Amino acid sequence: MKNLILKTFFWLLFSACITSSAQNADSLAIKRIFSEALTDTTSYHNLRNLTGNYARRLAGSAQSLKAVKWADQLLKNMGLDTVFLQECKVRHWERGEKETGKVISGKAGNHDLSICALGGSVPTSMKGLTAKVVEVKDYDELKKLGKEKVSGKIVFINHPADPALYNTFAAYGGVAGYRVRGAVQAAYYGAVAMIDRSATTIHDNSPHTGIQHYADTVNKIPAISVSTNDADNLSRWLKTDPDLNVFLKISCNELPETVSYNVIGETRGTEHPEEIIAFGGHLDCWDICQGAHDDGAGVVQTIDILRLFKSLNLKPRHTLRVIVYLDEEMEQRGAKAYAEAAKGRKHIAAIEADRGGFTPWGFSIDASSEQVKKVQSWKSLLLPYGLFYFEKGGSGVDVGFLKQQGVPLFGLVPDSQRYFDYHHSANDSFDKINIRELQLGTATMAALVYLIDKYGL
Amino acid sequence: MKNLILKTFFWLLFSACITSSAQNADSLAIKRIFSEALTDTTSYHNLRNLTGNYARRLAGSAQSLKAVKWADQLLKNMGLDTVFLQECKVRHWERGEKETGKVISGKAGNHDLSICALGGSVPTSMKGLTAKVVEVKDYDELKKLGKEKVSGKIVFINHPADPALYNTFAAYGGVAGYRVRGAVQAAYYGAVAMIDRSATTIHDNSPHTGIQHYADTVNKIPAISVSTNDADNLSRWLKTDPDLNVFLKISCNELPETVSYNVIGETRGTEHPEEIIAFGGHLDCWDICQGAHDDGAGVVQTIDILRLFKSLNLKPRHTLRVIVYLDEEMEQRGAKAYAEAAKGRKHIAAIEADRGGFTPWGFSIDASSEQVKKVQSWKSLLLPYGLFYFEKGGSGVDVGFLKQQGVPLFGLVPDSQRYFDYHHSANDSFDKINIRELQLGTATMAALVYLIDKYGL
Repeated sequence: MKNLILKTFFWLLFSACITSSAQNADSLAIKRIFSEALTDTTSYHNLRNLTGNYARRLAGSAQSLKAVKWADQLLKNMGLDTVFLQECKVRHWERGEKETGKVISGKAGNHDLSICALGGSVPTSMKGLTAKVVEVKDYDELKKLGKEKVSGKIVFINHPADPALYNTFAAYGGVAGYRVRGAVQAAYYGAVAMIDRSATTIHDNSPHTGIQHYADTVNKIPAISVSTNDADNLSRWLKTDPDLNVFLKISCNELPETVSYNVIGETRGTEHPEEIIAFGGHLDCWDICQGAHDDGAGVVQTIDILRLFKSLNLKPRHTLRVIVYLDEEMEQRGAKAYAEAAKGRKHIAAIEADRGGFTPWGFSIDASSEQVKKVQSWKSLLLPYGLFYFEKGGSGVDVGFLKQQGVPLFGLVPDSQRYFDYHHSANDSFDKINIRELQLGTATMAALVYLIDKYGL
Repeated sequence: MKNLILKTFFWLLFSACITSSAQNADSLAIKRIFSEALTDTTSYHNLRNLTGNYARRLAGSAQSLKAVKWADQLLKNMGLDTVFLQECKVRHWERGEKETGKVISGKAGNHDLSICALGGSVPTSMKGLTAKVVEVKDYDELKKLGKEKVSGKIVFINHPADPALYNTFAAYGGVAGYRVRGAVQAAYYGAVAMIDRSATTIHDNSPHTGIQHYADTVNKIPAISVSTNDADNLSRWLKTDPDLNVFLKISCNELPETVSYNVIGETRGTEHPEEIIAFGGHLDCWDICQGAHDDGAGVVQTIDILRLFKSLNLKPRHTLRVIVYLDEEMEQRGAKAYAEAAKGRKHIAAIEADRGGFTPWGFSIDASSEQVKKVQSWKSLLLPYGLFYFEKGGSGVDVGFLKQQGVPLFGLVPDSQRYFDYHHSANDSFDKINIRELQLGTATMAALVYLIDKYGL
């Protein structure tokens, strides 16, 4: 009996030492990852190049193909084991020349409106269109007005994103639907165009664009975003003069579909090269900005994970793969092509970075409860780096297409307070990037990759 | 027995209901606090006024007295129960006219250096001084050089803040000592001036100032800060030409001490008006900046706690007191005067906001373990607002003077990544403030005040 107690005691002591020493080794490895990320400026300079030389790189554009070449060359220069392009067909929508919005009113005065076409919009006629405006807050108000009061007019959907919500993605989610489907709803009641208040809580003069979708059942009418400041102005002017006219001219154009590419790079696994841990962001961005936070940041961060593993001489057991996705903003054709090609290739995990290059909090995890719990068991290793958030939830638009294949999905979650100040507007530029916040995103994902590679899910 | 079991069961059920309903009431109250803070823009506009109209408000300056009047009037306009000024004597150090630093070298070329006097420095002579430079990384290197090699020269302490550290306050803490005591150390070895690398991890052209202290045992020599970019440049030029000269001219001046004031405002408690929950930031800032993050943010946030309680019709049981401190940057004379006057007035808690107006994480708590545990027991109420950090640790420079009186002290802890990009430099300006991040700091402190007021510590 005494012997058994002693044996048990020593076994427990031994186990505790093993566990503690593994913890300690992991803690040190993660410290090295953060130190390396915070002292190396490669990703920041990569982002400066991408945003400075390849701004306005919407899928289908010449700029986006140049950006694909840039990413391909960048990965090749890193000396990875594999670098390849993955073809996908993409829409080719172009904004065209100068966009014009004007208020014309004897009572309220004449004023320029800061507007831009929403992604995928049809143009106005070459001469533009002039019409009276009905302002609504939501579809219920639109319905109440009915065809009689809406027909022949411009519908102005003025629904502010709710600043009272702590999570700005929730505030955005509450209004983004008006952008996406507002033109269909307005057209149903006979509107000639739809103007939507920009989907952000900030008050500024920059219109925020984004994808919008038509339906086959109603007319395709011009779909336009107006800056939040001018949404407030227009609303005020409409109170002064409900019969004011707005002139709109946009000359966007849908060209034939064209070919583009995801860019993929790999570091081969030492033990299970056939099994993949994937991570990526999307290279395309809206055509009115540099796409620094959305999603140049995610691209350079996920590329930097591979540089970081190399630089620290960390040899992954599984293959680490960065995917530089094309066409997240319009149709996710890159992500769909990737998911199709991925069938039959085992993905242990897929991580997406597409919420801006801000101080990271952790991950939103789309996986089984057991897998989420396993990740939460690593929390004490990550909390010293401000990483406290490891919750079940949505991952990301691009990796989401791997869900059907049962891949555990992760979305990097950074602080969300500033994201929609910049999102889809001209303000999404390189000067809004803080180098340390960017570097920390890389380190956070690299630490997760390290743990998944070592312990599985 | 059965009766007892039944009784116990119902008692437990009843307690559970009470607890759950209190939790629910608190959860709703805190939601109201965050909603109100995120939708009201008063504090942001207050900060715009303070930074725009009363920049460079170092204690002792005319600007600081104007700022005191501004704060006094602001509190009076809020219709608080009590508003009063609390006198303190402060130093009156002035920077004087244009500050000049120049490298003069046949080999390395002539270059301007972006420098500024450190706070409290003596001036150079009217004509300035020209001397050779010895570069050191730390005091050990200085000691090795000794009087022979240092005497008659300018000591250039070029110790970069360590970017590898996650917590930027740790990186700052690792080098701030060179700023504070570098001139004393250099003078000991006969140096004629001391140039210190700015205490920040960022690479920019702005010198960062801050307090420095002399000792009576050695000569008082000019103490100067150089921007990180020019620290790198100077180091490189010294490699090209170890015998280069540097010309320095600063004309700062220590005038007689003068009178200034803390500004204090109160909302009287309904049940225990004699017991105080205090919170504050400091009004003074360095004389080369607007003091937006350091510490205009803390001032307007803590003032806004009282507005927020009023606006939500929350009647505090204890007296809520905002303290707008004077002279944190130089000698903390305001905080010392406050602590002296506070003797005999029971303070239940004192909170300081002086780490910038960034997304809050929680609090660093200087109190007993039981009190820290009590605060941690409220975590589930605060986590929905990204507040995960409630740890034992230092509070703040100003409230720290209340420690001797046994007051539980709290320091608001926000995300630290950007703070030292701006700290004590011309870059600490209003445009670096994000309205939501600022508002969240207010809400975070108001939520803590609400819980302490309700449950004690």
